[in-house]
Amino acid sequence: MAALSFTLSAQDPNSKARAGEFVTDHGTVQTPIFMPVGTVGSVKAVSQQQLKEEVKAEIILGNTYHLYLRPGLEVLEAAGGLHKFNGWDGPILTDSGGYQVFSLAGNRKLTEDGALFQSHIDGSKHLFSPESVMDIQRIIGGDIIMAFDECPPYPSDYAYARKSLDLTHRWLDRCFKRLDETPDKYGYSQNLFPIVQGSTFGDLRKESCAYISSKNAVGNAIGGLSVGEPEEMMYELAGLCCENLPENKPRYLMGVGTPWNILENISLGVDMFDCVMPTRNGRNAMLFTSRGVINIDNKKWEKDFSPIDDGIDCTFSHYYSKAYLRHLVKAKEILGLTIASVHNLAFYLWLVKEARKHILAGDFNSWKNEMIPIIKTRL
Amino acid sequence: MAALSFTLSAQDPNSKARAGEFVTDHGTVQTPIFMPVGTVGSVKAVSQQQLKEEVKAEIILGNTYHLYLRPGLEVLEAAGGLHKFNGWDGPILTDSGGYQVFSLAGNRKLTEDGALFQSHIDGSKHLFSPESVMDIQRIIGGDIIMAFDECPPYPSDYAYARKSLDLTHRWLDRCFKRLDETPDKYGYSQNLFPIVQGSTFGDLRKESCAYISSKNAVGNAIGGLSVGEPEEMMYELAGLCCENLPENKPRYLMGVGTPWNILENISLGVDMFDCVMPTRNGRNAMLFTSRGVINIDNKKWEKDFSPIDDGIDCTFSHYYSKAYLRHLVKAKEILGLTIASVHNLAFYLWLVKEARKHILAGDFNSWKNEMIPIIKTRL
Repeated sequence: MAALSFTLSAQDPNSKARAGEFVTDHGTVQTPIFMPVGTVGSVKAVSQQQLKEEVKAEIILGNTYHLYLRPGLEVLEAAGGLHKFNGWDGPILTDSGGYQVFSLAGNRKLTEDGALFQSHIDGSKHLFSPESVMDIQRIIGGDIIMAFDECPPYPSDYAYARKSLDLTHRWLDRCFKRLDETPDKYGYSQNLFPIVQGSTFGDLRKESCAYISSKNAVGNAIGGLSVGEPEEMMYELAGLCCENLPENKPRYLMGVGTPWNILENISLGVDMFDCVMPTRNGRNAMLFTSRGVINIDNKKWEKDFSPIDDGIDCTFSHYYSKAYLRHLVKAKEILGLTIASVHNLAFYLWLVKEARKHILAGDFNSWKNEMIPIIKTRL
Repeated sequence: MAALSFTLSAQDPNSKARAGEFVTDHGTVQTPIFMPVGTVGSVKAVSQQQLKEEVKAEIILGNTYHLYLRPGLEVLEAAGGLHKFNGWDGPILTDSGGYQVFSLAGNRKLTEDGALFQSHIDGSKHLFSPESVMDIQRIIGGDIIMAFDECPPYPSDYAYARKSLDLTHRWLDRCFKRLDETPDKYGYSQNLFPIVQGSTFGDLRKESCAYISSKNAVGNAIGGLSVGEPEEMMYELAGLCCENLPENKPRYLMGVGTPWNILENISLGVDMFDCVMPTRNGRNAMLFTSRGVINIDNKKWEKDFSPIDDGIDCTFSHYYSKAYLRHLVKAKEILGLTIASVHNLAFYLWLVKEARKHILAGDFNSWKNEMIPIIKTRL
């Protein structure tokens, strides 16, 4: 089967925003795109049917750390990979587990070899190395798999960032080597995206972009942002990375972010996004809508029988009212978690698809500047 | 609009099982039927879309006690009733709240007037009387509304059961009187079903059937069973009630039960059922399938990638595997609650529809006797 291929369809005349598409063996994805996060093999509270029909997701994520621990590789391999296991037959991207080892696991220790950690579930000890993480991602079976990297915390000093970046680059070499030595596991192509690091330092970011670009991967990622730094700094660094990464490859900004973060980063040349925000915030009563942000817990929605959001293309968001969703949330009904998650994801997908339309129409930048204050409004 | 009307289509030659249908202003229901329980305005963990498309529910329940407390009558009335509020446009039946006041509320006191109780949510004090419960059910807007009764606990002595039954009958008169004095709230017909009580005493049950029948209601219910008595006693009493209730009206056995309970009671002449078992047990990893009962938590399903149940007519039950559902349950993923609930409800609906087919074909009794040992099997 064929390696991932990317085609640029249009470039916004007044920003760096681009529209394109990439083809995987599990289907084509139009960019810019937002990828719902299916942490443990399920996008939390959302069925695969709802992902297709309501959210209109094109590609979803799986988290290597979580899937490695549960259900574990033996089950995933016996199933024939994650697509077969969870029934999502579109493209899947898996992260490398590095970020979650450092943010979730108990005791963990970084060495040249990799990261030693204890499971947050049962305290058992494990080693993630560039090699093991490639093997694990082979077994999970993502169409796009991510390099094993270290994501330095914010803030980091220059010496730490320098040292960490060098390690990430050495690990990257080992990732590519391992991947080259092992065949695609299930007959379809598994494509490695390297990750730019360098913390908040422009020179390290540029150096990392150069190194990453030299690998000539089919796509490239920007990591280590949206980890606590000011938004302006994120935009500056994301913009710098986009300028220093190949034009003809998709650029994936990891773990970002709010709807307005996404529009701003699209304008800087980012093509792919993922974030737990739509589902996590949805489960905590925060809705993103085409008219602004809603805290559905608020008394003001008690008798508001208007649709959650009739401005987007999602049956759920039209069908269920604000008052009904508020009631479900107050009564702690599970359906409330589902409706809020489905709606927020559908809004994110609607937003990137609108962005794409405006890039193709050539008026993305002015649309974005009008849209951001609207979707940021607290309703 | 028209009062509920019931048509008998067929009678099984070798049992008392019947097939029929009743027409409400929100649609027609084919009997025998199982009604999913939508406690607080939502069938737990299941969307209204899934109820229609996956479960193929024809009528759902709402619980007066829960809806009265949350979202409350002011919201429900402003919405235009429960159908408008939750978006379920098919028939709805509401219970009278009596049973739940006695099983859920804090301090509660029974008087001739009604039941004084404290909310299990905030401890606030309320009175449910036959009159208030009719008014509340008018506002909730069920197509079928239930009489306010006392459900005596099991076991009850004869003197208590006698006294309780007399009270239930006096309350029934008050329910009908109140309903006659008040118009349908939202333009469609709201139909009162009286409830046979009498605890475990055959003579009281017969007396209650006679009294209830004398009201000439459009349908009749059997209450106070499946409250802890042995199964054989339930069947005996349900059979006795069916024999003593009108042939030409639907008979609703409240709160029953397991799949085999449902088949046995169909054979005794029951037409309508409700129970929280498919959803509650589903949320606790217990699946009812066309091949038997599954504890999906069990290690034996870890690598069983076969569908949850390909013997029934439900996309979910075909789409998701036992191993995937087990994984979701082990990982405490919300989607696991949804899949298990949707599947179990779809199984119950499949079962009553199969029963109906066999009644129409004239071989219900032999089919039932073959089916019960299969669906009772522990897999």
